[in-house]
Amino acid sequence: MTTENLAVASVATKANVYFDGKCVSHSLTLADGTKKSVGVILPATLTFNTGAPEIMECVGGACEYKLAGSSEWKKSGPGEKFSVPGNSSFEIRVSESYHYICHFG
Amino acid sequence: MTTENLAVASVATKANVYFDGKCVSHSLTLADGTKKSVGVILPATLTFNTGAPEIMECVGGACEYKLAGSSEWKKSGPGEKFSVPGNSSFEIRVSESYHYICHFG
Repeated sequence: MTTENLAVASVATKANVYFDGKCVSHSLTLADGTKKSVGVILPATLTFNTGAPEIMECVGGACEYKLAGSSEWKKSGPGEKFSVPGNSSFEIRVSESYHYICHFG
Repeated sequence: MTTENLAVASVATKANVYFDGKCVSHSLTLADGTKKSVGVILPATLTFNTGAPEIMECVGGACEYKLAGSSEWKKSGPGEKFSVPGNSSFEIRVSESYHYICHFG
């Protein structure tokens, strides 16, 4: 079961564009002040660094990911989540666009 | 003065991806049911068709646009808007990423 709609209070109107547009997200603020983002990663293999811990929730498409220090690629599809520690990184490999919600903390 | 944040009720979590990712947007629903979207167009020249009339509001970067039936390219930058009739089209030319709010109706 994927999260198709997310109740929010406000959206930052300017997109976050990473890797020449291979990843585009919009930042969200919920009514209780919680920050999240929704985004899409187009076909590519990319490395992301985290500040805060992140939970990546797939809402469409799919990806494979590999956490720092791991040698194993794992799949994540619609309705599935994976966690990334803070001050770390992960590689992500996308062959069909991967749509996600990024939860922080 | 650009609109940096927009009060909304919900966001569709799956992005709208057009032209192989040259345009990415997320659909929004306001508390009163009004639909809008926020998106970004990366450097490209594209043609968009409208169903409902649209007002494009620039919140970052810039574009040039040409409405159907016009021969004139016009510029639109941060805080500026342009209107597109329904059931029509417009060409848009972007050399630095153009961030926008799309208002319908």
